[in-house]
Amino acid sequence: MKQLVSILLALPLFAVAQNEDSIFIRKIADEILVNGKAYDNLHYLTKKIGGRLTASPQTYKAEAWGHTTMIASGADTIFEQECTVRHWVRGGQDKATIESIDGKKQRWTLSSAALGNSIGSGAKGVKAEILAVKSYEELDARKEEAKGKIVFYNFPFNDKYIQPGNAYGEAGKYRYAGATKAAKYGAVACIIRSLSQAADNFPHTGAMGYNDSFPKIPAIAIGLRDADSLFGICTHNKHVQVNITTNGRFLTDTIAHNIIAELKGTEHPEEIITVGGHLDSWDMAEGAHDDGAGAVHTIEVLRVLKTLGYKPKHTIRFVLFANEENGLRGGKIYAQKAKENHEKHLFALESDEGGFTPRGFSFTTDKVKFEKLKSWSYLFEPYFGSKFTEGGGGADIGPLRDITNVTVAGFTPDGQRYFDYHHAKSDIFENVNKRELHLGAVNIAALIYLVDKYGL
Amino acid sequence: MKQLVSILLALPLFAVAQNEDSIFIRKIADEILVNGKAYDNLHYLTKKIGGRLTASPQTYKAEAWGHTTMIASGADTIFEQECTVRHWVRGGQDKATIESIDGKKQRWTLSSAALGNSIGSGAKGVKAEILAVKSYEELDARKEEAKGKIVFYNFPFNDKYIQPGNAYGEAGKYRYAGATKAAKYGAVACIIRSLSQAADNFPHTGAMGYNDSFPKIPAIAIGLRDADSLFGICTHNKHVQVNITTNGRFLTDTIAHNIIAELKGTEHPEEIITVGGHLDSWDMAEGAHDDGAGAVHTIEVLRVLKTLGYKPKHTIRFVLFANEENGLRGGKIYAQKAKENHEKHLFALESDEGGFTPRGFSFTTDKVKFEKLKSWSYLFEPYFGSKFTEGGGGADIGPLRDITNVTVAGFTPDGQRYFDYHHAKSDIFENVNKRELHLGAVNIAALIYLVDKYGL
Repeated sequence: MKQLVSILLALPLFAVAQNEDSIFIRKIADEILVNGKAYDNLHYLTKKIGGRLTASPQTYKAEAWGHTTMIASGADTIFEQECTVRHWVRGGQDKATIESIDGKKQRWTLSSAALGNSIGSGAKGVKAEILAVKSYEELDARKEEAKGKIVFYNFPFNDKYIQPGNAYGEAGKYRYAGATKAAKYGAVACIIRSLSQAADNFPHTGAMGYNDSFPKIPAIAIGLRDADSLFGICTHNKHVQVNITTNGRFLTDTIAHNIIAELKGTEHPEEIITVGGHLDSWDMAEGAHDDGAGAVHTIEVLRVLKTLGYKPKHTIRFVLFANEENGLRGGKIYAQKAKENHEKHLFALESDEGGFTPRGFSFTTDKVKFEKLKSWSYLFEPYFGSKFTEGGGGADIGPLRDITNVTVAGFTPDGQRYFDYHHAKSDIFENVNKRELHLGAVNIAALIYLVDKYGL
Repeated sequence: MKQLVSILLALPLFAVAQNEDSIFIRKIADEILVNGKAYDNLHYLTKKIGGRLTASPQTYKAEAWGHTTMIASGADTIFEQECTVRHWVRGGQDKATIESIDGKKQRWTLSSAALGNSIGSGAKGVKAEILAVKSYEELDARKEEAKGKIVFYNFPFNDKYIQPGNAYGEAGKYRYAGATKAAKYGAVACIIRSLSQAADNFPHTGAMGYNDSFPKIPAIAIGLRDADSLFGICTHNKHVQVNITTNGRFLTDTIAHNIIAELKGTEHPEEIITVGGHLDSWDMAEGAHDDGAGAVHTIEVLRVLKTLGYKPKHTIRFVLFANEENGLRGGKIYAQKAKENHEKHLFALESDEGGFTPRGFSFTTDKVKFEKLKSWSYLFEPYFGSKFTEGGGGADIGPLRDITNVTVAGFTPDGQRYFDYHHAKSDIFENVNKRELHLGAVNIAALIYLVDKYGL
């Protein structure tokens, strides 16, 4: 009987809390859907500032904009964290041209882009025959043929994956390490099939790295239609000559900044909840989905909590991270400062999968905390964000997780279109839908509210 | 103990069936995601044929294309159902111009489109002062002011609705019946705010109707930015003169056709499962989402079941309906023929909410059948189509439901972008994503398979 009484006593309280939460989340939704500023903020960031490659002039315009916008959105406190960044520049127009096929002259320019952090070819370009392979395994088997060639990896996304992110994960090594692997076998340059499933022919850039044990060779990505054509040509012809001209180089290291706003905690100001996105982008487009969306989500969460008069128990930090794309120095300095200052981190969330319609969140944490988080998921059903899964986070909050073991989460919008635009010319404001973007902010704000209210 | 034994005996069988179903649905997904033809079919329908206003030349091109494509996709049988349709034509360039504000001359052309089925203004146009109202209630209160005026209804979508379809439902009466309501009070023309939440300024057409008891007056929709501006101007100025020129008229009634393919049932050929979309569209764009997507979804379900060698128990009908947009004659004749031929209908599904990323299905049926349907929803989770709700269907299968009480379902993709494009110039192929479109076909094919296998 006692047990029954406890249940009877407990239920109404639970129901009241549920109801309070759903009412407050409804207020968040109403405010963002009717008065949300994320879309307008994104318009400014993409159209008035533009692409924000680390250390470009736009980097500092974006930092100043983030600072001003977060103050205007109601931050108690605002500060910056300086980090040293490598300063890569594209340095000029990338060009890749098929010059001859089995000795017959051609003049077919491929839709191409140098990979980020890659070195330039020199003004005359690199001219050599293509060795077209589907995979590292094929290159290993044909390594004797690679010397003096341009290795072309035509590894496609696996269309069977329902989540394109899984296909990206699988194909990513060709972008990051394909040049070194090719150089190891004596190749003089490297071409990758863009990491995308888009129906268009834009090349998709992105970070690559060299291994100092092997020569550093130029590396480019080409559009998917050109990749299909080039691979077809190479399959049917022995000698396909290509000339690649790229101009990438590193200038002297410089500095960039994480821009950090806070709403100070009223009960546990020393415990920190982080919500963030990265301010930098590639140079080829406006960085609208990657990661303008995450930056404006972050600012919108601040704005809505302030507008609704919410007084957080814990300190909530809104972080616009520097240099995610080609160095992660912002995320690293954030973690390092957390360690140096003995900060206590409760939770960190990143939005870096675009401004698409919400699906949910993914978490890296322990079982007990995940079950607690998951018990809230029903509150997200009206806003489409109820799919709570394990295993996620974000690049910028990875170093913080490594150091503090904090629970990290990634906002996971629908992922079908993300790699259409990712690191390509098409990642522009026009490809972001206002309501989809704003619904993302609704879900993120709701989760931050619940974590703050109930702890973890 | 008996009960326990039954459970133990039953479980493995249940598990085997579950496993068989998830394996078959996985095959459907693999086939569509890798070899799907829906996107290419949509390209043909939108780019080679284009907008398909009922009785336009494109109507018959689209019918011939549907016929050919369904045969190529593996139909056993193909036939047509003739229906008489009204033949409305836009008849020329719509124009709406602000000519003066409080006596000062202006020349500001609004982004406008005549509503479907509306009559033309005559060559000289209709020139009158605007009476701008927010709602029918305001018009009722100000009815004395309406005589000789152009009534402008500026009723916006309610942004607070998470599902834009609800906002559309609420605002729809201004498009459908606003002209009659205005004419009743002596107005000479009617302008509506487009039924949309788009960030652009395209006008959105759509069906309207007249009530024969009142004068038939021209009716147009204007883009949202222009609606905001015009409403603002009218609020601050007493006399805003607008000239509207439209050219709509009805030609002689003519015929169009439902195009119907079948896979004959092997066990219950007399019991029919219908899956369909409508082939007609408005004339302003390509009818890509509305409802090219539904047409190619329908054909893709046929193609995938045939390709995988699936032998349906029941007869599955793949229907490209005629004349949904401005008459529903295709849906009506389909129901009428079902009655005349004493057909037995088991289930009917329509895809008419666009080719966006899947969310689920909505059903109109009884509780028992809904619970049975819902028990399958877990099978759709990997493909994002697991949200099974009550209350849906589709315009074309509505008459069949009315006559036979058949269970009807609507495919419900994510709805945030649908009304950005709906009936506007922007409803083009480029605004459809291949994977989103194909995932829709995966979910629809899976549901048709389950209904066929287990009945209802």
